[in-house]
Amino acid sequence: MYDVAIIGSGPAGISAAINLKVLGKNFIWLSNGEVSKKLTQAERVKNYPGLPDVTGGELAWTFRNHTDVMNIKLCEEVITGVYDTGDKFTLLAGEREYEARAVILCTGVEAGKPIEGEDEFVGRGISYCATCDGQLYKDKTIAVLCTDKKFEHEVEFLAELSKRCYVMPMYRGYEIKSPKAEIILKNPVKFSGGMRLNTVAFKDGSVEVDGVFILKGSFSPSTLVHGLRTQNGHIEVSRDCSTNIAGIFAAGDCTGRPYQYAKSVGEGNVAAHSAVEYLAKTKHNV
Amino acid sequence: MYDVAIIGSGPAGISAAINLKVLGKNFIWLSNGEVSKKLTQAERVKNYPGLPDVTGGELAWTFRNHTDVMNIKLCEEVITGVYDTGDKFTLLAGEREYEARAVILCTGVEAGKPIEGEDEFVGRGISYCATCDGQLYKDKTIAVLCTDKKFEHEVEFLAELSKRCYVMPMYRGYEIKSPKAEIILKNPVKFSGGMRLNTVAFKDGSVEVDGVFILKGSFSPSTLVHGLRTQNGHIEVSRDCSTNIAGIFAAGDCTGRPYQYAKSVGEGNVAAHSAVEYLAKTKHNV
Repeated sequence: MYDVAIIGSGPAGISAAINLKVLGKNFIWLSNGEVSKKLTQAERVKNYPGLPDVTGGELAWTFRNHTDVMNIKLCEEVITGVYDTGDKFTLLAGEREYEARAVILCTGVEAGKPIEGEDEFVGRGISYCATCDGQLYKDKTIAVLCTDKKFEHEVEFLAELSKRCYVMPMYRGYEIKSPKAEIILKNPVKFSGGMRLNTVAFKDGSVEVDGVFILKGSFSPSTLVHGLRTQNGHIEVSRDCSTNIAGIFAAGDCTGRPYQYAKSVGEGNVAAHSAVEYLAKTKHNV
Repeated sequence: MYDVAIIGSGPAGISAAINLKVLGKNFIWLSNGEVSKKLTQAERVKNYPGLPDVTGGELAWTFRNHTDVMNIKLCEEVITGVYDTGDKFTLLAGEREYEARAVILCTGVEAGKPIEGEDEFVGRGISYCATCDGQLYKDKTIAVLCTDKKFEHEVEFLAELSKRCYVMPMYRGYEIKSPKAEIILKNPVKFSGGMRLNTVAFKDGSVEVDGVFILKGSFSPSTLVHGLRTQNGHIEVSRDCSTNIAGIFAAGDCTGRPYQYAKSVGEGNVAAHSAVEYLAKTKHNV
């Protein structure tokens, strides 16, 4: 059990991690990959005080060097859900679970919105985890929406155990090796069904399925945390970075504009301090 | 007339200045001195992302180097009041005035609270500016509360023109040269009077005066800006760093805890962006 779990390795997550370390907390820092792509791809950053003129890559290196110097480890995991389990939170990462008394969400902003029906059918035909739920669809017909090459081994695993497997790769240059994978080069626009999902619709046409796997590295906040209050895709936070759920804090782009490194770093700092205050207030025998 | 006036040269003010420069705005950056004392006196700072282990002095230098590289000039002025004058704000600095369409307050936190009665008698016997109001007290009895050696020439100026001048230096090693200055080594605890101030009270005893000069470099936000909403000495701001007065924004320690460099830098960034948005919305023929 950790004091705090941080999700995300952009500037907000880095700042939160540095502060929790300085504050002597027992925390885990989770992310679906290295420092945010958006950061490393920025051409030039001139308004992060203290570093007058750096590329995004240099800024990312400088930030990560700070966590390295402090011996803070990043744990690469795709977190698919955060659940309030009484006096703690349980974070699911495939078949693994992490437990923490407080959570700081630094998940950035999603490039795309959830697909229509996605939130509605989660757990009723839509799954985000091949290894967790694959066996439920043995010899059944499934669709797999794959957003990144790194998930192709999971696509192959699902294709092999299914009766029929439609695969929609959402990127160029896919190399899915299973002969059972039926590639569909269309974007799904809607998931529908009754009690359970049974149809994946495209702009033209649709397929009937027993289930859908969406393999992606990041989730909209409302998909990730049930009951989290959002507005226009941004997590609603107070000045102290607390959300509507006690013990869950948010920082960085996921809380809204301006999308700025300094703003993210500032909120990471505030969220860390607020989480520590929350822990002190709710202290109990662990 | 400037687009924006920034008051304060701590991390929040520096961040606001850098961002307004990047955003191409016409602004003035005012401060009663160099980068905040509190910053330069910090022993070690380990939680400002990107600079893993620096002294306060090094961090201050690094921040100021950033503004130097961008050719941003700091204008040394003690601002004694900010007044809403229609579609702009007027900032008083002794006998000089500055005008700006928006203001960002980065004034830090006061070490001391205002003295009882101070806010009440401003303009009715209490003055912050020797050169502006000195002549009003020619051949009268005044008290001068001097908080810093650098104001001693103003004390001497006031002593010379007054009939009688009680001087309370609030620091060690004063060198006030006027023979007319009657030094009182006590802290005033209360200002009182009727329509106008007439008494300065100490813990033991009091003196009768026609007016009081308080010579200091920084002011509580509510003294500085009439009508500004504060709570426990902190300026109340929304998530976008706006205050209750349209066009006035605040960032850094003056908005409340945690008192942290990263938090201040983040808010300076947000306040700059919000000020620019405000300018765009209220655009008129200037």
